[in-house]
Amino acid sequence: MHLSARGHEIAVVDNFLRRAMSVEMGAGSLTPIQNLQDRVRAYEEVTGNKIKAFIGDLVDPQFVERVFTEFKPEAVIHYGEQPSAPYSMIDRKHAVDTQRNNVEGNLNVLFAIRDITPEAHLVKLGTMGEYGTPNIDIEEGYIEIDHKGRKDTLPFPKLPGSMYHLSKVHDSHNIHFACRIWGVRATDLNQGVVYGIRTAETDLDERLCTRFDYDEVLGTALNRFCVQAVVGYPLTVYGKGGQTRGYLNIIDTMQCVTLAVENPADKGEFRVFNQFTEQWAVNELAERVKRVGESMGINVEIDPVKDPRIEAEEHYYNATHTKLLDLGLEPNLLTDEVVAHLIETIQRYKDRILLEPIAPKTKWDPRA
Amino acid sequence: MHLSARGHEIAVVDNFLRRAMSVEMGAGSLTPIQNLQDRVRAYEEVTGNKIKAFIGDLVDPQFVERVFTEFKPEAVIHYGEQPSAPYSMIDRKHAVDTQRNNVEGNLNVLFAIRDITPEAHLVKLGTMGEYGTPNIDIEEGYIEIDHKGRKDTLPFPKLPGSMYHLSKVHDSHNIHFACRIWGVRATDLNQGVVYGIRTAETDLDERLCTRFDYDEVLGTALNRFCVQAVVGYPLTVYGKGGQTRGYLNIIDTMQCVTLAVENPADKGEFRVFNQFTEQWAVNELAERVKRVGESMGINVEIDPVKDPRIEAEEHYYNATHTKLLDLGLEPNLLTDEVVAHLIETIQRYKDRILLEPIAPKTKWDPRA
Repeated sequence: MHLSARGHEIAVVDNFLRRAMSVEMGAGSLTPIQNLQDRVRAYEEVTGNKIKAFIGDLVDPQFVERVFTEFKPEAVIHYGEQPSAPYSMIDRKHAVDTQRNNVEGNLNVLFAIRDITPEAHLVKLGTMGEYGTPNIDIEEGYIEIDHKGRKDTLPFPKLPGSMYHLSKVHDSHNIHFACRIWGVRATDLNQGVVYGIRTAETDLDERLCTRFDYDEVLGTALNRFCVQAVVGYPLTVYGKGGQTRGYLNIIDTMQCVTLAVENPADKGEFRVFNQFTEQWAVNELAERVKRVGESMGINVEIDPVKDPRIEAEEHYYNATHTKLLDLGLEPNLLTDEVVAHLIETIQRYKDRILLEPIAPKTKWDPRA
Repeated sequence: MHLSARGHEIAVVDNFLRRAMSVEMGAGSLTPIQNLQDRVRAYEEVTGNKIKAFIGDLVDPQFVERVFTEFKPEAVIHYGEQPSAPYSMIDRKHAVDTQRNNVEGNLNVLFAIRDITPEAHLVKLGTMGEYGTPNIDIEEGYIEIDHKGRKDTLPFPKLPGSMYHLSKVHDSHNIHFACRIWGVRATDLNQGVVYGIRTAETDLDERLCTRFDYDEVLGTALNRFCVQAVVGYPLTVYGKGGQTRGYLNIIDTMQCVTLAVENPADKGEFRVFNQFTEQWAVNELAERVKRVGESMGINVEIDPVKDPRIEAEEHYYNATHTKLLDLGLEPNLLTDEVVAHLIETIQRYKDRILLEPIAPKTKWDPRA
């Protein structure tokens, strides 16, 4: 919707994987998200802009070929992957399904670009979680290494923390190869944790709202804390809470994708952007939600639980993120007002919140 | 057979993928390799040692569970992957099949170790090709990086050169994760190009011979050159011939695997060995085969062809390989005698050689 509103001709591809996962988890979207077809119709009704919808699975090569042949994209924004780390850690089946779905879908897209639209620019959703938490500064995709008197600029080493994060590392290597060997142009958006719920477009009409997950499998830290605050559920900080990551507002996600699409990579270039605006430790987010919530008259408690993940709970973290700023990104930072606004929006949908799927259940090691 | 002869209790798992690929390519083994079941029977007849054979596919999780539950391995030597770079580059289907087969089979093995034999040591066949040809020295799996005043030892950055090599990089990341998170013990053998045809065990009885591929898809450089010399086919050097790689004798492959198995990794350790004994440029190998062949009265010509791969044809290459030497590896180097012996063995099977599958056909970019 954001790119369509800027005058681009848009097609959307969906297989409803995330909806199916949400059903499987017994969870649901806070917001009353409509069917894709209904959203497309509502969007046209409200704005006059048409969006073409293709329903199918990227793992199906014939489907991918049909989409590319019919629509002939100039840019492909590939967000079509299983997006949850806990989901990928449930068991063997979920791990294998995640890597198959993500790696094969992405390979099919790469071959379709090579064979059908070789000038198309791939804008791929990666994740900051590909890097893990190394003891040195994280750079944007590459690092210059001085070693035994010689020098090279090489892919930044990866220490991903889940079967899902691994799938994104595999994708990055596959895309880099397609750029080096076939001259594909690509941008890997190593996105931080997204928070927020509303954009200029979802505000046009309630039928256009996007989904908002708050359960332990599909929800992300700040969003989940705000939901917990609204329903009086103690904020579930995992372990010591020193886990530090990059974060960004959903509004800035739209900005970043737009900047990438409208400033394409060169032929054969594999460009990596670290897509976030601020770093926060989980503890800092919980404290912030508590403070803002209490200023709004809500009683908020923080209840650290044993970390169900296996990860460093205290660590060094400093990630470079200048490339999108250089392209013109104007960050919407996490102010108290933003948190308050998020809490207010959640309060509107309070009756839809299910408590059962919030508590952490998925362990990184089932034997632990 | 090598480990069985040393007194280990052995089971072998096979789905005959390589045989099926050879049929698909219209190629064949130089040596008259027997059925697995016949080889197992012949081996028992000759040595009195029993080897248990499981026929099935690692991509089938129920099969993998059965193997682990019945045999309860202390060590798992995982060579069960699609092993050919050109095969993986034929088209989209072969690329996706390669990554699916290799990544899923390896994931199933990792989960079986975690859930059934958590103390088992995984000895996994990787490849030197995971590293590509960086402009710095290649280390064994990890590199210490000094960056902006901080330091960490991180996975060595990877620049794999085919869909097959990519699958091995994906495996390495998945195994490293299993070691970090679940405490699996693993050794990744980044093997160089293997040459040679006979080992102490295959020499016991002709029914025990292993396969020997010389076609453009399954054959490797030195083996293929010796076959070309024997049939009077000009040696097909790809491009400038400066492509430099690590090489080792098949006898040393047996030694290396044995050293890895008998000196297991620690719990949670992801150990990487660069498994080769010498570095050669393709040109040097061709010249060597020409010289040795001519000393044996064979007229050998070298015919450089346009490189069907996309790779650096001249580059810096210096890879560390001390860890297996430290464990006691005694290299069998590539002497003129070794080349002569290889040519003599090939001459014995000269009548079985097919010319048609030798010429390079599989291009890294079909549009080139």
